Amino acid sequence: MIKKILIANRGEIAVRIVRACSELGITSVAIYSDADRHALHVKKADESYNIGSDPVQGYLNAHNIVNLAVASGCDALHPGYGFLSENPILAEICARRGIRFIGPNADVITMMGDKIQARKAMIKAGIPVIPGSDHNLANVEEARVLGNSIGYPVMLKATNGGGGRGIRRCDSEAELLKNYDRVVSEASKAFGKPEVFLEKCVVNPKHIEVQVIADGFGDAIHLFERDCSIQRRNQKLIEIAPSPQLTEAQRQYIGKLAVKAAKAVGYENAGTVEFLLNEDNQFYFMEMNTRLQVEHTITETITGVDIVQEQIRVASGLPLQYKQEEIQHRGYAIEFRINAEDPKNSFLPSFGRITRYYAPGGPGVRTDAAIYSGYVIPPYYDSMCAKLTVWNLTWESAIARGRRALNDMVVFGVKTTIPYYLSILGNEEFRSGEFNTSFVDMHPELINYDAGHPPEMLAAAIAAAIAAHNGL
Amino acid sequence: MIKKILIANRGEIAVRIVRACSELGITSVAIYSDADRHALHVKKADESYNIGSDPVQGYLNAHNIVNLAVASGCDALHPGYGFLSENPILAEICARRGIRFIGPNADVITMMGDKIQARKAMIKAGIPVIPGSDHNLANVEEARVLGNSIGYPVMLKATNGGGGRGIRRCDSEAELLKNYDRVVSEASKAFGKPEVFLEKCVVNPKHIEVQVIADGFGDAIHLFERDCSIQRRNQKLIEIAPSPQLTEAQRQYIGKLAVKAAKAVGYENAGTVEFLLNEDNQFYFMEMNTRLQVEHTITETITGVDIVQEQIRVASGLPLQYKQEEIQHRGYAIEFRINAEDPKNSFLPSFGRITRYYAPGGPGVRTDAAIYSGYVIPPYYDSMCAKLTVWNLTWESAIARGRRALNDMVVFGVKTTIPYYLSILGNEEFRSGEFNTSFVDMHPELINYDAGHPPEMLAAAIAAAIAAHNGL
Repeated sequence: MIKKILIANRGEIAVRIVRACSELGITSVAIYSDADRHALHVKKADESYNIGSDPVQGYLNAHNIVNLAVASGCDALHPGYGFLSENPILAEICARRGIRFIGPNADVITMMGDKIQARKAMIKAGIPVIPGSDHNLANVEEARVLGNSIGYPVMLKATNGGGGRGIRRCDSEAELLKNYDRVVSEASKAFGKPEVFLEKCVVNPKHIEVQVIADGFGDAIHLFERDCSIQRRNQKLIEIAPSPQLTEAQRQYIGKLAVKAAKAVGYENAGTVEFLLNEDNQFYFMEMNTRLQVEHTITETITGVDIVQEQIRVASGLPLQYKQEEIQHRGYAIEFRINAEDPKNSFLPSFGRITRYYAPGGPGVRTDAAIYSGYVIPPYYDSMCAKLTVWNLTWESAIARGRRALNDMVVFGVKTTIPYYLSILGNEEFRSGEFNTSFVDMHPELINYDAGHPPEMLAAAIAAAIAAHNGL
Repeated sequence: MIKKILIANRGEIAVRIVRACSELGITSVAIYSDADRHALHVKKADESYNIGSDPVQGYLNAHNIVNLAVASGCDALHPGYGFLSENPILAEICARRGIRFIGPNADVITMMGDKIQARKAMIKAGIPVIPGSDHNLANVEEARVLGNSIGYPVMLKATNGGGGRGIRRCDSEAELLKNYDRVVSEASKAFGKPEVFLEKCVVNPKHIEVQVIADGFGDAIHLFERDCSIQRRNQKLIEIAPSPQLTEAQRQYIGKLAVKAAKAVGYENAGTVEFLLNEDNQFYFMEMNTRLQVEHTITETITGVDIVQEQIRVASGLPLQYKQEEIQHRGYAIEFRINAEDPKNSFLPSFGRITRYYAPGGPGVRTDAAIYSGYVIPPYYDSMCAKLTVWNLTWESAIARGRRALNDMVVFGVKTTIPYYLSILGNEEFRSGEFNTSFVDMHPELINYDAGHPPEMLAAAIAAAIAAHNGL
């Protein structure tokens, strides 16, 4: 069993990994930039090391991070999500230096990171993929010819993209011509590789993804699906498990498909197979994320499986603890990404001091936060500062619980997405459980919540803050 | 359906009831003494009313509270636990004034509150009871004669007692003679009635209690059992659901017994049937608590049933939402009562300002707290200031999670039972899952945790507090 883990990440996911380590009796090692010296993950970890003054570069320097893992006596490294988590170089250096990488091996990361290679592997495994180019586009002319043959709308995508970036929808040849250079440029900047490819655009799809986990003995299981259709500009906002939109037959089908995909590529550790579900109830493979995902919490909540601990066990060389038939799902879980953003101002990041933070309590509520009262959110990183996960036995009661918990939660000092989510929870289409990825765009009116009259709990919470401040 | 509820209580349980109201779309009304004007339940409720300057009397004045319920337009009242919750007068006044009392009717409260009457009812229903006097003792001489005929040790108990008070164990005739007047005096003071009775003492029993809930249509179900054997002076400290000490056959048996008991007395709403399990695996009825219990959270956690919401539905005249066969239990839940007490100083209450509070997060953790950063715990009430409930799939992993969450929790400014619980979690007997109500007395060494070197997270948390205070 692994004994000491360097966590090559920051924020709430680093705290999440510390918690898993703590429960397994594993020593946790945090890293932090100067800007992160007061971050919660540093306080919670058993040990912590400064990785320099640049707020971002230290988290992206694979060589330095692995050197630190070796120097601090770690025998494993957890990459979290973002940063280097899907960069095969980190996995490769770990392997070379004798540090167990808690994730799949570099070859699989490379294959699934290259959307063209991934498509080919899936086609070979018999997984349905979206019609498109099975190679990188040579130039805009090739894109034009292919676009006309596939038929519009099409999606222009960075071959090495991910996380919703480097993607543009083109509804006509003119748009394709206009967007081509932009996507190539975005791809170069964001992923260091300019390659792009084309896919037919699945109109108004639902985003359905399946959590899988595989061990080193050829066993792989799925932990059911998540519905991540509530997105804004390809960034997930609210995720649900299981999807209220699937029949049990669809759930079984997609779960088996994901396991098949994972086995086909020799996958090891936790991963997510993302599918689009079109209006004709056809599933298409979109991509596989070769890492832990932000929204793994809702899967943990409905299955009871601790995915991070299972990742660590599998990386330790242990077999999966569970057989597929032992994995049960119960009730509905909803995750709300609490972003420090002002929804009324184009979701502009709202960094600064958290003057007061109070985590919601009571039944069916889980928080994974990177913040505390007095913490200053630095401006250099992602705006997600906490995740609120709620659970209840039925879809309707899970919504009621979400509403209650969002009202119960206190995050003062910065603007957050909390009131916007309350607005979404009041929407009839959302409440019906029938929605697709166009939901946010189709409901611009949901941004018109009354910020001048904050939801029920805020006024009371303000009074509490003042009372506390005055020492009453 | 009930529309507006007056919560005749304070502290964490009042907050718990507000949350249930909020999820059901019911308006909540809090009451508070002057000492409680900054209490969390006041901030969280939709409306709140001051009930006077005396810190305790206002919460015990049934007439005034029901008057307030009527005046504020409530159609129901939730008594919580403690205070008036098991006083039939409150239920009676509610009935007279047209306020739905969220609990059983006054007759059932009266019957189960009188231990002699309750014994008789259980004997009639075929529920095993502990050998003892089936009437109130006339005087010390009768006690002496009966004690000798039953055989020592015996328990001398207040007939109208409850909550672990008004109970003394007597190991000999001499002790019985010495304790008789004391228990009579305690009974008079604590419960307003001097009657006492005798029972054979079940030596080293396990305390096993079953949660039941019944509707007005004659249906009753159980939600499995809780193991409350970890007690100090008859006050529960740590509770577990389900009991790691029962076989599935015992679980089914005791569940059915509890439902039988509830049906025999025409019980309505939520209640708890408490049993002692002796060393020969015999269950004996001890008492029935005709109210919500502190430790209902662990039952909610393993079953997914929101007991408070179910109480409100049943009191609204709705049938139970669940059939017995739909109630499933999954994993293990442990509740830790976070008391503001100094375990090293005879558990002396430690009231005062909470300089910093941070609720633990991550998977399988629930908090029900009455505190927040800056809150001053008033000295007039129970010392329990929060409840930490953890869950995991297995008993071993639930213990690991409990340890992690206790370390994750920050309560500064007062002494708490947190380090003592960490000490208990390290004990092999506790970890084996095999213990009885003598556990705390048998392990005085568990109090010798090193307060000078607080558990892993405290040092980091102190640094966080200082950093936050300095505005870093």
